[in-house]
Amino acid sequence: MDKQTKAQLENALIRRFFVAPSFEIYGGIAGLFDLGPAGTQIRQNLISAWRNHFVVADDLLEVQCTCLVPEQVLVASGHVAKFADLMVKDVKTGECFRADKIIEDQLQKKIDTEKDSSLKNEMQIAFNQIDGMNETDTYQIMKKFNITSDAGNELSQPFPFNLMFQTSIGPSSQSKAYLRPETAQGIFMNFKRGFEQARQQLPFGIAQIGTAFRNEIAPRNGLLRVREFEQAEIEYFIQNREQKCKHIEDVLDLKVNLFSADQQLSNHQMTEQITIKDALQQKIISHEHLAYFMGKTYQFLTSVGVDPAKIRFRQHLPKQLAHYAKDCWDIDCLLYCGWTEIVGIADRSAYDLQVHSKATGQDLSAFIKYDAPVQKEVYTAKAVMKVLAKEMKQQAQQFKVAIEAASQEDYARIQKEIDETGKFIINGAELSKEMIQLQKAVQSIHGETITPIVIEPSFGIGRIIYTILEHSFYMRENDEQRTVFKFNPLIAPFKMAVISLMVKDELEAVTGQIIKQMRKAGVSCKGDDSGVQIGKKYARFDEIGIPYIATVDYDTLKDETVTLRERDSMKQVRVKITELEQIINKLINGMPFEEVK
Amino acid sequence: MDKQTKAQLENALIRRFFVAPSFEIYGGIAGLFDLGPAGTQIRQNLISAWRNHFVVADDLLEVQCTCLVPEQVLVASGHVAKFADLMVKDVKTGECFRADKIIEDQLQKKIDTEKDSSLKNEMQIAFNQIDGMNETDTYQIMKKFNITSDAGNELSQPFPFNLMFQTSIGPSSQSKAYLRPETAQGIFMNFKRGFEQARQQLPFGIAQIGTAFRNEIAPRNGLLRVREFEQAEIEYFIQNREQKCKHIEDVLDLKVNLFSADQQLSNHQMTEQITIKDALQQKIISHEHLAYFMGKTYQFLTSVGVDPAKIRFRQHLPKQLAHYAKDCWDIDCLLYCGWTEIVGIADRSAYDLQVHSKATGQDLSAFIKYDAPVQKEVYTAKAVMKVLAKEMKQQAQQFKVAIEAASQEDYARIQKEIDETGKFIINGAELSKEMIQLQKAVQSIHGETITPIVIEPSFGIGRIIYTILEHSFYMRENDEQRTVFKFNPLIAPFKMAVISLMVKDELEAVTGQIIKQMRKAGVSCKGDDSGVQIGKKYARFDEIGIPYIATVDYDTLKDETVTLRERDSMKQVRVKITELEQIINKLINGMPFEEVK
Repeated sequence: MDKQTKAQLENALIRRFFVAPSFEIYGGIAGLFDLGPAGTQIRQNLISAWRNHFVVADDLLEVQCTCLVPEQVLVASGHVAKFADLMVKDVKTGECFRADKIIEDQLQKKIDTEKDSSLKNEMQIAFNQIDGMNETDTYQIMKKFNITSDAGNELSQPFPFNLMFQTSIGPSSQSKAYLRPETAQGIFMNFKRGFEQARQQLPFGIAQIGTAFRNEIAPRNGLLRVREFEQAEIEYFIQNREQKCKHIEDVLDLKVNLFSADQQLSNHQMTEQITIKDALQQKIISHEHLAYFMGKTYQFLTSVGVDPAKIRFRQHLPKQLAHYAKDCWDIDCLLYCGWTEIVGIADRSAYDLQVHSKATGQDLSAFIKYDAPVQKEVYTAKAVMKVLAKEMKQQAQQFKVAIEAASQEDYARIQKEIDETGKFIINGAELSKEMIQLQKAVQSIHGETITPIVIEPSFGIGRIIYTILEHSFYMRENDEQRTVFKFNPLIAPFKMAVISLMVKDELEAVTGQIIKQMRKAGVSCKGDDSGVQIGKKYARFDEIGIPYIATVDYDTLKDETVTLRERDSMKQVRVKITELEQIINKLINGMPFEEVK
Repeated sequence: MDKQTKAQLENALIRRFFVAPSFEIYGGIAGLFDLGPAGTQIRQNLISAWRNHFVVADDLLEVQCTCLVPEQVLVASGHVAKFADLMVKDVKTGECFRADKIIEDQLQKKIDTEKDSSLKNEMQIAFNQIDGMNETDTYQIMKKFNITSDAGNELSQPFPFNLMFQTSIGPSSQSKAYLRPETAQGIFMNFKRGFEQARQQLPFGIAQIGTAFRNEIAPRNGLLRVREFEQAEIEYFIQNREQKCKHIEDVLDLKVNLFSADQQLSNHQMTEQITIKDALQQKIISHEHLAYFMGKTYQFLTSVGVDPAKIRFRQHLPKQLAHYAKDCWDIDCLLYCGWTEIVGIADRSAYDLQVHSKATGQDLSAFIKYDAPVQKEVYTAKAVMKVLAKEMKQQAQQFKVAIEAASQEDYARIQKEIDETGKFIINGAELSKEMIQLQKAVQSIHGETITPIVIEPSFGIGRIIYTILEHSFYMRENDEQRTVFKFNPLIAPFKMAVISLMVKDELEAVTGQIIKQMRKAGVSCKGDDSGVQIGKKYARFDEIGIPYIATVDYDTLKDETVTLRERDSMKQVRVKITELEQIINKLINGMPFEEVK
């Protein structure tokens, strides 16, 4: 997309009210945007498609949790301590910047103009690593490449700024709370209830679509970096990374662009076209469930109108991974502003369930029943109180507990010590073998208790909408003033328009009836009874990406047919009014326009 | 609904995860609830139905605004000063109560036990007026009827507690903001852009579905009084109250229960069954647009499963109206806990647009073009500078501006003064007639500038969901353990289930295929391959209100048909697998089960 097209896109988005700055009449607030009617309908269609593609198709459990989150939950999850971006301040003006963004901006410019290819390469490798870098490394990069504020002034050392919005709940204002920075935590809160509904079988998944809030330091980049945004997240709980994925076959043959950690560290910007099957075999993607959601996401994005040639999967570098995460892939899309993350798929390990279990004392584990019981040698131990009481006096009871509550590993060690020395050590004290009755017996083990590992596909709804807008926008050939969105009919904000060839009462009456009938059938349908030429009306509908326009003319009054026009091909076909609803519904669900008769 | 049924309902809602207390593993937070899978899907279906019934059918402009609202917006709207509930404190324990709720609770008990019919009547009238009462009147009622804290202690005088959650935006934490207490304000922010998209014609409407937040003092009543909730609101802008409503015919013949202000003040609890047409003619409902949305709301609620016999329209008492509101009707539904507001329809006059226009200096008016220009006598005035300069010296310019910018009313007054005295008064000074050239001429007036009046239907999504749950819940005859939700298929969280008659591999293979096929078609479909009896499986599906169950048996392997069972009638019919998708879709869209063949 060139600069001029980008400007025309932005103009169209505001002028036709896809989107508007929030509180515009009050001068606006950085990082807050409202969706207008076209934007809202696209969002709605996108969410419906997502729900069908993930929730319905894979029978996920969808939940709806609150935006308000009490402090203790986010202390446990680590957000209160660590959910921060590095901030730098212009030492002269006090202006705040997000460290990674200002470095990226300036480094990109340096890369573009640098002649020395080895230096250029060094800069590119630095560029690839900035995201998620710690304070020290960030400061080093700032110094090395001489990063300054936008005004050219010196910058402070980077320091963390917590991105959560704070508030308090209740009349006493003593219950600190935050607006959720991600929807995921609400899902973990409901793990137990979800697991029950899944009849306590793994794998199972819980999904949530909802608003999240991040108090961005200095949001720019319009719709791509905002302070209030919508996520669609899945937490998919699996037994272990070896567990097979039931539907993996559905995605194995997909060919996708991978940009692995190795590639990022070794060269510039190359991605590799590879099937998911090969990527799994070559261990580039670490396991099946991760691969499944990567493939499923690719299918989803392309089905809603993201350009397949502009999608890449970028693996997180080891340093960028959250300390609990095992592997993580961003799905980046190529936009005017460069490659931009719009989905992330992370293997979060068992971290979240474990920390919340620890903080609450609640059991958030799953009992995995074996297909058949496993025979296993197991130690049982009993303290011999007569001997213990005599030797250890008041401490006897305490040693009894220690002996009888020890682990299988401890018993194995104790057995070994007794075999070798006739004594054993427990709680730091040396006891004689007469104090314990230790036996080994074969038992049937029916299963084991584990904390499930979780795979998290996380979608930024607003970013996907923006990507669709950029990838759908074009200008009619030979007419730069005439802009069109080539939304696919499923995503198009309004499905059709009905107009009269000329604004005459006898035609408008029929037009009005058809509109009312279509709307009653749930088809969002626009009209236009203004006095302008029909070509101008077509252009108005093109601007908001309406895929089909039915025109009522004088023949309609005779034979009850209308002309149906397709947006991109501009092909027209004559159809019966009585069949219009059915035809439109078929078109929305994927029937090619050529098949309309 | 009796007490036992209510207990069983609550049990079913939690056990089958329609809903759960938020942060339950952390002990929960009063007034916050999560929706589980069944609740989330009902919500989704309800919102879709709402969108079709209001947004698509009436071509409203739907927007999506932010939850974060900067302080100045809510100062202008009056929320910072006035969006409060009256709070009382137990003077001994410090426990906080919402004044109106604690009075209502205790007054209701007194009414129930009071023998003296005149005193009882007095209490009932007081009860009807509590909602929205001011501090003084509330305190009088507290004293008169001896209202105490739950612990029986004395209560403080009532004082206002602002219900908005406060936070701040940006790294400096100097930009105070609130979480929106209603979605309406976001709509007013976008009035101008919406009006443009409506091609500057009145009436037009903007809708929004979104989360709102109220820091309730002491939320009880489970799902009905929560701190974070979803609203669906419409702001419908009209030219004036005489403007005709285009679709009024659609609702005129509806017979509804009205509980007018007059009735509330004159007697106990009587409502009147009346058609919307008669209510309009008798001026009980003050104008057509208000009446239209009342009727449209009644149609909506009954279409999603609210019991028509348990709906009433309660008019706000003059004292309960916000100072800017002209007329307001609550739609109450009868629940276990009594009549409960689930929708409000208010005539907010031009208040909101006017205050935001004043606060921002932005023009939020509409120019109403007359059908034909109107001829009107109009004054024009010019200052005579020669005379002015001589007499008024330095002040001459200032008087020139005052003379030439005066209103038509001023000119009429000036003309009158000149006619009577030869002098006129402007800006507090007396000027002679020689200083002004005042002329009267006939001009063509093409229209006028007005601030539109707004009608606001406001729906509490959570409350409607809860009403549907209560109104749909029943127990199978002769089996009190077997609970059912008779959701209509459009609202039902899951549309169907497919199971095998017995859990055998050859049957399960077919069952699995059908499930996959239905899910792919976007039909949410449950399975159950556990080892329990089929009757138990039916019961499990009844508990979450699944309307249709298809059963695969050995005949299926021969003739590719399954048995389809309807939930409430328990009728069964044999259908072809290939036709299943089409049949289910027709049933969801309203086809009676008897027509399945």
